[in-house]
Amino acid sequence: MKKETENQDRILSEGIEKAKRVVRRATKPQTVKTKAAEDKQVEKKTAVARRTTRRPAAKKTAQVEFGKGLKIIPLGGLEQIGMNITAFEYDDSIIVVDCGLSFPEDDMLGIDLVIPDVTYLKENIDKVKGFVITHGHEDHIGALPYVLKEVNAPVYGTKLTMGLIENKLKEHVLPKPVKRKVVSYGQAINLGCFRIEFIRTNHSISDAAALAIFSPVGIIVHTGDFKVDFTPVNGDTIDLQRFAELGKKGVLALMGDSTNIMKPGFTMSERTVGKTFDNIFAENEKSRIIVATFASNVDRVQQIINSAAKFGRKVVVEGRSMVNVITTATELGYLDIPNNIMIEMEQMTNYPPEKLVLITTGSQGEAMAALSRMAANIHRKVSIQPGDTVIFSSRPIPGNEKSVSKVINELSEKGANVIVQDTHVSGHACQEEMKLIYALTKPQYAIPIHGEFQHRKAHTELAQQMGIPKENTLLLSSGDVLEISPERAALVGKVQAQGIMVDGLGVGDVGNIVLRDRQHLSENGLIIIVLTLEKYTNQLLAGPDIVSRGFVYVRESEYLMDEAKGIVYAALERCLDNNVSDWSKIKTEIKDSLSDFLWKKMKRNPMILPIIMEIE
Amino acid sequence: MKKETENQDRILSEGIEKAKRVVRRATKPQTVKTKAAEDKQVEKKTAVARRTTRRPAAKKTAQVEFGKGLKIIPLGGLEQIGMNITAFEYDDSIIVVDCGLSFPEDDMLGIDLVIPDVTYLKENIDKVKGFVITHGHEDHIGALPYVLKEVNAPVYGTKLTMGLIENKLKEHVLPKPVKRKVVSYGQAINLGCFRIEFIRTNHSISDAAALAIFSPVGIIVHTGDFKVDFTPVNGDTIDLQRFAELGKKGVLALMGDSTNIMKPGFTMSERTVGKTFDNIFAENEKSRIIVATFASNVDRVQQIINSAAKFGRKVVVEGRSMVNVITTATELGYLDIPNNIMIEMEQMTNYPPEKLVLITTGSQGEAMAALSRMAANIHRKVSIQPGDTVIFSSRPIPGNEKSVSKVINELSEKGANVIVQDTHVSGHACQEEMKLIYALTKPQYAIPIHGEFQHRKAHTELAQQMGIPKENTLLLSSGDVLEISPERAALVGKVQAQGIMVDGLGVGDVGNIVLRDRQHLSENGLIIIVLTLEKYTNQLLAGPDIVSRGFVYVRESEYLMDEAKGIVYAALERCLDNNVSDWSKIKTEIKDSLSDFLWKKMKRNPMILPIIMEIE
Repeated sequence: MKKETENQDRILSEGIEKAKRVVRRATKPQTVKTKAAEDKQVEKKTAVARRTTRRPAAKKTAQVEFGKGLKIIPLGGLEQIGMNITAFEYDDSIIVVDCGLSFPEDDMLGIDLVIPDVTYLKENIDKVKGFVITHGHEDHIGALPYVLKEVNAPVYGTKLTMGLIENKLKEHVLPKPVKRKVVSYGQAINLGCFRIEFIRTNHSISDAAALAIFSPVGIIVHTGDFKVDFTPVNGDTIDLQRFAELGKKGVLALMGDSTNIMKPGFTMSERTVGKTFDNIFAENEKSRIIVATFASNVDRVQQIINSAAKFGRKVVVEGRSMVNVITTATELGYLDIPNNIMIEMEQMTNYPPEKLVLITTGSQGEAMAALSRMAANIHRKVSIQPGDTVIFSSRPIPGNEKSVSKVINELSEKGANVIVQDTHVSGHACQEEMKLIYALTKPQYAIPIHGEFQHRKAHTELAQQMGIPKENTLLLSSGDVLEISPERAALVGKVQAQGIMVDGLGVGDVGNIVLRDRQHLSENGLIIIVLTLEKYTNQLLAGPDIVSRGFVYVRESEYLMDEAKGIVYAALERCLDNNVSDWSKIKTEIKDSLSDFLWKKMKRNPMILPIIMEIE
Repeated sequence: MKKETENQDRILSEGIEKAKRVVRRATKPQTVKTKAAEDKQVEKKTAVARRTTRRPAAKKTAQVEFGKGLKIIPLGGLEQIGMNITAFEYDDSIIVVDCGLSFPEDDMLGIDLVIPDVTYLKENIDKVKGFVITHGHEDHIGALPYVLKEVNAPVYGTKLTMGLIENKLKEHVLPKPVKRKVVSYGQAINLGCFRIEFIRTNHSISDAAALAIFSPVGIIVHTGDFKVDFTPVNGDTIDLQRFAELGKKGVLALMGDSTNIMKPGFTMSERTVGKTFDNIFAENEKSRIIVATFASNVDRVQQIINSAAKFGRKVVVEGRSMVNVITTATELGYLDIPNNIMIEMEQMTNYPPEKLVLITTGSQGEAMAALSRMAANIHRKVSIQPGDTVIFSSRPIPGNEKSVSKVINELSEKGANVIVQDTHVSGHACQEEMKLIYALTKPQYAIPIHGEFQHRKAHTELAQQMGIPKENTLLLSSGDVLEISPERAALVGKVQAQGIMVDGLGVGDVGNIVLRDRQHLSENGLIIIVLTLEKYTNQLLAGPDIVSRGFVYVRESEYLMDEAKGIVYAALERCLDNNVSDWSKIKTEIKDSLSDFLWKKMKRNPMILPIIMEIE
């Protein structure tokens, strides 16, 4: 039996793989053909699933026409960390869960941020009933100001989430006002044929929610980013009872956070960090304490303030995003701040160092953040003193390790005592927490989200350990159109889902060609050759002049530049002697000769730009 | 008593700090003055040291004139990881320990590698008696081909180290032949007034050595990169007895590896990785196995070959540096390869996948390395198959986390099973190993090397735990001239020690201005404005033409480019109307107007290059 199942699994996976390949390059008729073939396989697959697992059938199948499923379309968030956005479509209704941005990859030179491509939503604008937001982190709300300009639909979220969205929208001018509504935990909203319920979870920001999406074909549970914290700093533990209740009703699919899926065990409670702070405050009662953390981690800030109060220190907040978030969180009642504990930076001089705590941005070593400026001695108001205690209450996000290390070195060199041990816990579920959610919800399908491929792959393996048949664990790519129902799950199409790069105020005006040029310029620099020719006779009237940037230090390379000029002259003469009058040919000749010369001489490959001006 | 000592410590540290500051900005008379002041303090300091610790006095003080010390001059390796090189100078003798390169920092755009500035050695060329190399890693030998061109002196090292140096020198043309000599463990060489003994250690490359440098003022022990491996794969355990013997004789200073100083405990033996390999081979007997590791880790390669032999697999080696090192190591007898186990890549098709092991480069996600090319499907001979087992036998070097992650994702997407757990151990000593070396050598001074500031700082704290008085733990910067003797240790000067950037064949022709231009170009791209003016009348004969690269995709931004041209025209007209004939003023006017316009319109700041040609 096991053998047989395995074999069928293999066939099915191959089938899906093949379907995926075909769909990607699909012309329409091909897709249809594949779909038909796939349907057959999926039927088999479901049969296998039924044989090998006992799980409650989803309830609402009766009212669904056969073969008609819910479409789940991730428009981002699967190839990269961040840019989380997923559309759910049934009949005339589309709802969108989250609308985040991602930060540029290393090769996206000069790009400020990346937002999702919402062409599919624009094309189906009449169907879009609203945006449902799980929590207030940038990778879940950051693209809203851009997307709402093109897709004006109401936005729903919990109180703090909506507060942070308001902050964000203030900085942008939207062409039309957008409807915004605060939703409470346990409350459900109706959007078209969907009902969406917000479920309390824990995360590294208050007011995080999972979503129960009641669709005509069954219930989808979307965890958002979450962890299980039995002793949270603010609010209650994740509403595990509701997850269980939904599980009893029958969950069609669980879309679960994969961020920490490769970490065994259970994520520590946020409250453990508070204990560490108390210990550090006790051990460093003679020195000023500076704590760097994520601006959005309101509970972390609360715990720093708690320790400060306990040890009789005043608190100063530094860094624009930190000030913004703390202001919003305080206004909305998410921070409990004792009277007279907060002071302005200007008042710092009135207190001895050992009576101060500074809460600051810059825990990721970001060059322009407050802490990095202090470390580099370019902060206007705070300079690091020998004996200062600096706490990094964070872990470096992958890619930031070196910049964080640089800041730590700079702080140490100035005599600060830098502490990184036990001063942070993750906001994401580890393996045992995720297993708990599977045990409570017992979904028919597992659709891992929030993670790179390796994480989501590992997540499918965990789901299989929890009894989900392999073929019901689905690895999607951004842009995939998954059609899902209790009878089957199949890829039925592909929509546009490449990230759109934002550079300054320009959205999408920098593409691959521009990036390739930036890459070339950054590695090799530039040589410009200008010359003026007489239009009809091709006589050389001026130049060639050579200008270079980012290539060699010209004042120390005069001989080289003279040689280069010689090469250009020779190339030009060859052209003019042979009566070449096509300027693009002349440019190519100049470029190739100079390029050859420089490669042979110095193994370098600058961008060479010949420019010819003409005079009649 | 404790109070008093602390107080004196503070005064002394302040004294040294002050001396350091003064020496850095020193004019000569000031230095002399400071030195005198410092001498006095150091006498006090030594007195303190004598009172608070019992350690054997160094032996050879008798023959040294009072106040004359050994100069220790790190020319690199302290501000960055890599580029290890330290000069030791006494009277007419200089010896140089190691001569490594470092890889460029993220902001060194287009730079291939960084080598030390050896101006000080060139200026004292007659004193330089030789290079003494601890082991064959790039950060200890990589700069030799460049430095030997300018400082021709004999090179000494153990057998494998010299083999790898020979390989390296073959690729470069040296103006004059350089004397090279293989040294055995326990053997000592005499260079000027120094005697240097090579002591067996363990590391992630065979034939690593620590050095006992016998100088006229005492013995310096330099650990090189090392760990303590009681069950090494090849050769014997680090010669702990010799460290103890030297300790008995009296060690003036210990220069110890700080790489893993923040890690508690003891580094695992290399042999443990072999066990993991055996387990992985046993569990994956149906699939092809690909192992990525550092080319230089010969013992790791040995263990892969051992497992392959045990499980009846053939071994293929891929990646230029991997092939080079394995060839050299085999020739020199550092690899024990069973007959007929190695096959050429072309023969792979003759064997089923489960009979093959591929050893490859690319464990750091380097874009052009073999494994990355396989993962990206651009390797000419190997393509990843579903079911392949890929082992990363390495840990990402800080800064490489994201590229490694990218390769892992690509491999997983192709269906490979990627294993990273327990497949690597470090080659560097953790805290307990370092403590062991302190316990054996009982040095008077601790001079932490090989590590960023935060690591070396932590190392001084560990040294203090081991009984070295705080003021005898010395934190140097590259270029510092430390004068050391049993009576005192003081900074007495500063020499040139900035890294020199190598770009292609160019050594040192890329400096900060060029890098700043590359940075600017990479983030914002470039706009060139060319126009031709009549020399005397300033009449506009041609242009202005606008050329841009890396700015926006021009074909989709015609309107913007037209607007820009308008701005340039207007600026030009203003100048010509006002009879501005100074071209630099015209250029500035054009540049500023266009820059303003682009910033206001799109919050971007491209490099703007106005070029004016003149025609008589």
